[in-house]
Amino acid sequence: MRAPDSERLARAALSRLAEPGDPRMSSLVAELGPETVHRHLAEERDVGGVLTDVATRLRAIDPGRDLERAERLGIRFVVPGDAEWPAALGDLDHCGLVHDRGGSPLGLWVRGPLRLDALATPVAIVGSRSATSYGGEVAREIAAHLGSAGVCVVSGAAFGIDQAAHRGALAGGGPTVAVLACGVDRAYPSAHKQLLDHLAQHGAVVSELAPGCSPTRIRFLSRNRVIAALTVGTVVVEAAVRSGALNTAHWADRLSRRLMGVPGPVTSAQSQGVHQLLRSGGAAVVTRGADVAELVGLSGQHLVTDDRVPTRPRDTLRPREKQVLDAVPVHRGAGADSIARTAGIGLVEVRRVLGRLVERGLVARDDAGWRLTDAAR
Amino acid sequence: MRAPDSERLARAALSRLAEPGDPRMSSLVAELGPETVHRHLAEERDVGGVLTDVATRLRAIDPGRDLERAERLGIRFVVPGDAEWPAALGDLDHCGLVHDRGGSPLGLWVRGPLRLDALATPVAIVGSRSATSYGGEVAREIAAHLGSAGVCVVSGAAFGIDQAAHRGALAGGGPTVAVLACGVDRAYPSAHKQLLDHLAQHGAVVSELAPGCSPTRIRFLSRNRVIAALTVGTVVVEAAVRSGALNTAHWADRLSRRLMGVPGPVTSAQSQGVHQLLRSGGAAVVTRGADVAELVGLSGQHLVTDDRVPTRPRDTLRPREKQVLDAVPVHRGAGADSIARTAGIGLVEVRRVLGRLVERGLVARDDAGWRLTDAAR
Repeated sequence: MRAPDSERLARAALSRLAEPGDPRMSSLVAELGPETVHRHLAEERDVGGVLTDVATRLRAIDPGRDLERAERLGIRFVVPGDAEWPAALGDLDHCGLVHDRGGSPLGLWVRGPLRLDALATPVAIVGSRSATSYGGEVAREIAAHLGSAGVCVVSGAAFGIDQAAHRGALAGGGPTVAVLACGVDRAYPSAHKQLLDHLAQHGAVVSELAPGCSPTRIRFLSRNRVIAALTVGTVVVEAAVRSGALNTAHWADRLSRRLMGVPGPVTSAQSQGVHQLLRSGGAAVVTRGADVAELVGLSGQHLVTDDRVPTRPRDTLRPREKQVLDAVPVHRGAGADSIARTAGIGLVEVRRVLGRLVERGLVARDDAGWRLTDAAR
Repeated sequence: MRAPDSERLARAALSRLAEPGDPRMSSLVAELGPETVHRHLAEERDVGGVLTDVATRLRAIDPGRDLERAERLGIRFVVPGDAEWPAALGDLDHCGLVHDRGGSPLGLWVRGPLRLDALATPVAIVGSRSATSYGGEVAREIAAHLGSAGVCVVSGAAFGIDQAAHRGALAGGGPTVAVLACGVDRAYPSAHKQLLDHLAQHGAVVSELAPGCSPTRIRFLSRNRVIAALTVGTVVVEAAVRSGALNTAHWADRLSRRLMGVPGPVTSAQSQGVHQLLRSGGAAVVTRGADVAELVGLSGQHLVTDDRVPTRPRDTLRPREKQVLDAVPVHRGAGADSIARTAGIGLVEVRRVLGRLVERGLVARDDAGWRLTDAAR
């Protein structure tokens, strides 16, 4: 299935004209279709009959050339109507605005072999750019666990938690997708050029912005809604109170995706934003990859069992037996009467219970009386 | 108001006979009253007409002498019917058993000037004996905050979190109560003798166990239910997966008290038990004393406001203004046409917005064009 070329061209043109996440554009397109919106805007004249600013700009855009150039760079433009278009993005049309941004993308520019309609249970892992080594470690562990389970890890390729998430996913042998706030032909941050090239070869690098576009603050906010919408859940690993990761978290919440937070030291500024998410009730506590796998509903084998604790001999005792055992001295043996007084249990019963404890190898009798065996200590 | 002496004597005798939290004893007493239960048990004979073990032990107990001796040591025995008896303990008769323990205490032995019926919004702070320095710090901060708000901090005087809680409460100038698993005349652990003596002079040291009794494992479990029942909420600061603090948490949950947990590094074994409590949904995340004060419903002034973040000039801008501002270069000025291209906004509108940004002192014009001012960076 493939969208008509005319529609793809109109969407490519509009995507260069409008800022991503401009809710006026997405609602116009939803109402009238991309071609009609494109035609109207391109013909718009002001009262003097002069082409408006928008019309002038739109006429200068050549989407056909853009698409050709993109193709030469190995970049495809995926739009609604294409088989590859991820249906989940449609939720963005029904969940309102955050910071005046919203609506589903006009299209997504994609670089890489991973098909966007084939991401099984994708999970976003996001967090501070100025992450601590603790946060980086935890992000890597979670991503590696999800990666080894075949889950696609989605993040933003930024410094800190984002890059730890991508690298963890790769280490786990799983697919991973970076969603950028600039054109997918650009490396931002430039220090991550190798990482991004690797993702473009083995996963996917995705953006609403046409190739060549630079990142701006507002584009990061728009980008965050795509990360949240593409995934079934978002894990915030570390976030200070002002972190952009909280914006992604709000989107996940708005979109009724599973929102998860990794706790950290309450004394760490990089965990404060996460703790706010956990306190406010929106986010569930996750401490490791297995927790995340369980919460996003991966199949049965991912159900978390709490850490196994080794069974100790006394764990299998009845309460009365424990009570007597507690009253038996460690080193020098004591008489049953003394043990009965300490335990606060009658002598007859204490004698009977001591017999059972001897059978179980927990108590031994010596000349002075009863004492604990090595096994009971 | 004072319970009849005959009842107090019967309760004192039974409290020496039975293990604290033995549900059979508390339900018998609830049904028949302490005097009747005492008489029945003291007269019980077996089929041969010989006094039973229990009867023999009960006849050897002299509660009148016990009470006199306690009084000489400055210890009072508070029982139901006394004005000082904390009504909240009655909840223990209706909340079932945990680890075969349950029921309200036969009475409480108390050492110290603090009256148990005068604890305003008491809060329990509990946790690992082998706490980390992180846990100790957080426990102290929370206790000091509550103490300075006049809240009574209740804990178990153990090593680790318990002692940090008591010391924090004292530092905050608040009342604090230790509930022990042995007689209140004993110092357990012995290293905390000074602390316990201080609490006995300025707060209260409390136990179900008669003076002279030694601590056993099962008595710690029974003790935990008293800590949970005496308080309106329990804060677990650190707890490994096997920590006794989790037993207190389960009691708090059973008793419909507010259960709270302090998150920590997911890599720390001492926080694993807390994270389980947070994950299971029973416990609310708290990161500081103010959070606890809010959750236990202290009056209005304790409502938590999230950390204030300083307002920056760009916070007050409209989205379009931010968008243009993001496109203005930091050092060398750029022409409005270049800024319009970068921002993806029409030239006319960019010119208008740049004017507003100059008025706000965020943008300046030089020979080369427009650039950010120091205030905007």
